[in-house]
Amino acid sequence: MPNIRHALTTKREEDFAAWYQEVITAADMAEESGVRGCMVIRPWGYGIWERMQRLLDDRIKAAGVQNAYFPLFIPLANFEREAQHVEGFAKEMAVVTHHRLICDGAGRLIPDPDAKLEEPLVVRPTSETIIGDAMSRWVQSWRDLPLLLNQWANVVRWEMRTRMFLRTSEFLWQEGHTAHADKREAKAETMRALEMYRAFAQDQLALPVVAGQKPENERFPGAEETWSIEAMMQDGKALQAGTSHYLGTSFAQAAGIRYQDREGGQALAHTTSWGVSTRLVGGVIMTHGDDDGLKVPPAIAPFQIVILPMLRDKPEDDALLAYCEELRVALAAQSALGEPVRVLLDNKPGKAAAKRWDWVRKGAPVIIEVGTRDMESGVVSLLRRDDLWEMETGKPAFQSPSRGEASATIAALLEEIQATMFASANARRDANITRGITHWSQVEAHFADGQIYPGWIEVQWSRPSGAGLAAVEEQLKSLKLTFRNVPLDAAPADGACIFTGEPAVERILVARSY
Amino acid sequence: MPNIRHALTTKREEDFAAWYQEVITAADMAEESGVRGCMVIRPWGYGIWERMQRLLDDRIKAAGVQNAYFPLFIPLANFEREAQHVEGFAKEMAVVTHHRLICDGAGRLIPDPDAKLEEPLVVRPTSETIIGDAMSRWVQSWRDLPLLLNQWANVVRWEMRTRMFLRTSEFLWQEGHTAHADKREAKAETMRALEMYRAFAQDQLALPVVAGQKPENERFPGAEETWSIEAMMQDGKALQAGTSHYLGTSFAQAAGIRYQDREGGQALAHTTSWGVSTRLVGGVIMTHGDDDGLKVPPAIAPFQIVILPMLRDKPEDDALLAYCEELRVALAAQSALGEPVRVLLDNKPGKAAAKRWDWVRKGAPVIIEVGTRDMESGVVSLLRRDDLWEMETGKPAFQSPSRGEASATIAALLEEIQATMFASANARRDANITRGITHWSQVEAHFADGQIYPGWIEVQWSRPSGAGLAAVEEQLKSLKLTFRNVPLDAAPADGACIFTGEPAVERILVARSY
Repeated sequence: MPNIRHALTTKREEDFAAWYQEVITAADMAEESGVRGCMVIRPWGYGIWERMQRLLDDRIKAAGVQNAYFPLFIPLANFEREAQHVEGFAKEMAVVTHHRLICDGAGRLIPDPDAKLEEPLVVRPTSETIIGDAMSRWVQSWRDLPLLLNQWANVVRWEMRTRMFLRTSEFLWQEGHTAHADKREAKAETMRALEMYRAFAQDQLALPVVAGQKPENERFPGAEETWSIEAMMQDGKALQAGTSHYLGTSFAQAAGIRYQDREGGQALAHTTSWGVSTRLVGGVIMTHGDDDGLKVPPAIAPFQIVILPMLRDKPEDDALLAYCEELRVALAAQSALGEPVRVLLDNKPGKAAAKRWDWVRKGAPVIIEVGTRDMESGVVSLLRRDDLWEMETGKPAFQSPSRGEASATIAALLEEIQATMFASANARRDANITRGITHWSQVEAHFADGQIYPGWIEVQWSRPSGAGLAAVEEQLKSLKLTFRNVPLDAAPADGACIFTGEPAVERILVARSY
Repeated sequence: MPNIRHALTTKREEDFAAWYQEVITAADMAEESGVRGCMVIRPWGYGIWERMQRLLDDRIKAAGVQNAYFPLFIPLANFEREAQHVEGFAKEMAVVTHHRLICDGAGRLIPDPDAKLEEPLVVRPTSETIIGDAMSRWVQSWRDLPLLLNQWANVVRWEMRTRMFLRTSEFLWQEGHTAHADKREAKAETMRALEMYRAFAQDQLALPVVAGQKPENERFPGAEETWSIEAMMQDGKALQAGTSHYLGTSFAQAAGIRYQDREGGQALAHTTSWGVSTRLVGGVIMTHGDDDGLKVPPAIAPFQIVILPMLRDKPEDDALLAYCEELRVALAAQSALGEPVRVLLDNKPGKAAAKRWDWVRKGAPVIIEVGTRDMESGVVSLLRRDDLWEMETGKPAFQSPSRGEASATIAALLEEIQATMFASANARRDANITRGITHWSQVEAHFADGQIYPGWIEVQWSRPSGAGLAAVEEQLKSLKLTFRNVPLDAAPADGACIFTGEPAVERILVARSY
């Protein structure tokens, strides 16, 4: 094996957390803003989020869900109502208390004591209550149901320890909120959203996920059922990548979402909510990144192909740029993964080699370099980000198709990269779920210190509730483990619960997690 | 003339402000949220904003501008810096002072006194300062310029008197922020953004606008030049629909946006900013609405065509629905205005006539009703929202094309509606700009009480500055008038200033405004 000089200074296996941070910086995805817990999402990171938004929004609209927009500020009274009916209600929120600044006479600005709000306002941590209020106005009759709403918005939850994309005080998300006539329809919507997330994650983000139900202790406060998709990161930890909740009638009760049914009686609506956030960007980094930086799946790459002309400040540059522009036009005329191909001709000033490595670190799926010699031979130098190195030589694995061939095959190439990235992540995920564990001692051995890559385990359990469940939770916590979910496609239980010894009722995933 | 029974209870000519509010309610566009100054944007109103976003975002990206996202919260120190260099700095802002709620022991939640922020945070009223901070980090060398950024975001400016879409405490907007090596490039970007807004407003929102430069007293605080597009509402008032600012080097100075130029020296960047907001939705209502409700230009209609099957709870309903679904598919396969046609088959329960009037009030460009008799004859009943009434009879002006004809001609029809809406608004605008006023007394007569529709006037002026300008501003204020802008395409001055009597240097628009 040759010695490859990778583009990052930190290797995943040396320090995964530091590597994660280096990818974000090296790929110009985000940075600290100077405001506690809030990040600046730079164009490349935001472009990936925008692609996610566009693709998921198409799916949301196709399901008949309508986008709307609700206020950023929520009155305290809404939370008092929620605090009463929801145990585990979180109170770390940004509170607005004044509506004006004045100068203090010493050159500083301070909140104007004369502009104190009568009732403080909370910056939304989620919009359940204010959307519930709107639903109670909009739903009068069975004819108004189902009411299918979604919001794309920023939300704020004051966080003490933050990590870019994964946990920040302000983050971006979508929150679906729906109201239905009965439990059957609301549960069907809960499962539709879950399946939408599963397909979106797998087909577009190339994230293999396990869709399943959360146990009681991991449910959204107030929910009757919480479902999730869980993705495995390269350090073996789980990332909850999306959730879908069946809320029963408790939120409808609190907000007064009642309707006249077909028989003229009054009934409470059954509601759901479901969401994904900018945390998905963190999931993409930790699933697909490598020691050369980020790798972006073609379906969500702001640019799928970057063309780098090797300019030399010489008269030939004009001809080279014209050659590259023709290539750009030919590539952009193609369609891949159901959309026009996205190509950037990067002719910003700078050394070609430095620019190549910038785009490698950013994870553009295909980089095409064109030098004068390429132009003269009618070819291009093409690099696949997912297959970067020639193993024999340790050099970048450039291919040299003709310019026409490059355009003719680009769609198939992008689709192959997308499929390869998924297959590779999927194989890693499958290889790192351990089954067949039947005793707690095996769990302890599996997750003992020094085990570098324990991944996840799937165990059988008897689904204790209340105090029994709390005891199990503590037991898991001693190994820093949590329940992830009961996979929809898990095999039926056929043994004993590893916690209680009683007959198991189902199989559940256990892992360390973000 | 027959007596037409219009769909709204308030007529524009009776009470324009009440009519505006009724359109918003009757078209399900927005409503009060219960949070002071904040509205809920309902799906139909938000759908129009989403269409605007999509179309403008395409133009922004085509210009090489990149979207990014910056924090909602801005430290006080940023505003202290701005307050020093910007006169007229506005201080009505939402201030976050605490990061946790606790129970007060009496069932109420209060801001936790132990969770008071050391430095209060301001909810962004605009992002100039925090984006300036980022630019100062990202710009090092001339190679980093131009830096072209845009953000789609919510912003908050505490407003005492609010009006939906036109002035709300929280609103949605985009803010472009760019940095350039020199004045020439920054001014070119300022004008590019202005022209982008003009074309977007006219070609897609069907809003005729006047692009021009604001006089000194109407400039964005701190800007060297402010340009705007101004639209005329049906009550003759002006609506500032978009602005583009050349900021010189003062913002770069305050934020420290410096770069090493090609010669190795240090230079300050020249910056610009430009924005439009959800206020545009108000502009569309007041330009295109009529006594039957909203009219949405096809380019920004969430649905351009709504198909209403006239269901009768009978066995024939199935065949009728199948007929309508075939029609929907045939229509959706067409392209109009450069995009696939957007069609809704509305088979929600409800009486067909009631649903028709709902869609008339919402302003769907084309409504197609299909009854059993239509189906049997192979036709459909088609209503153009921009040509709703048969003048001879006072009844809705239904056309009866065959189903095939309806699909074959829909693209041309939508394009004709778009063009007709623009032409009609444009003619009204042109007819209501009065020129040739040479004395202040004529201005007083023109805008005297009882003049129902004075529109705008274009007058010649000598562009006084400082105290001279302040005096003119007061003079205008006595008639509730303001300067709008100096149109880019105005004729050169050739007379005396109506304010000072001195030789005029240019022509400027004067109007009442929102």
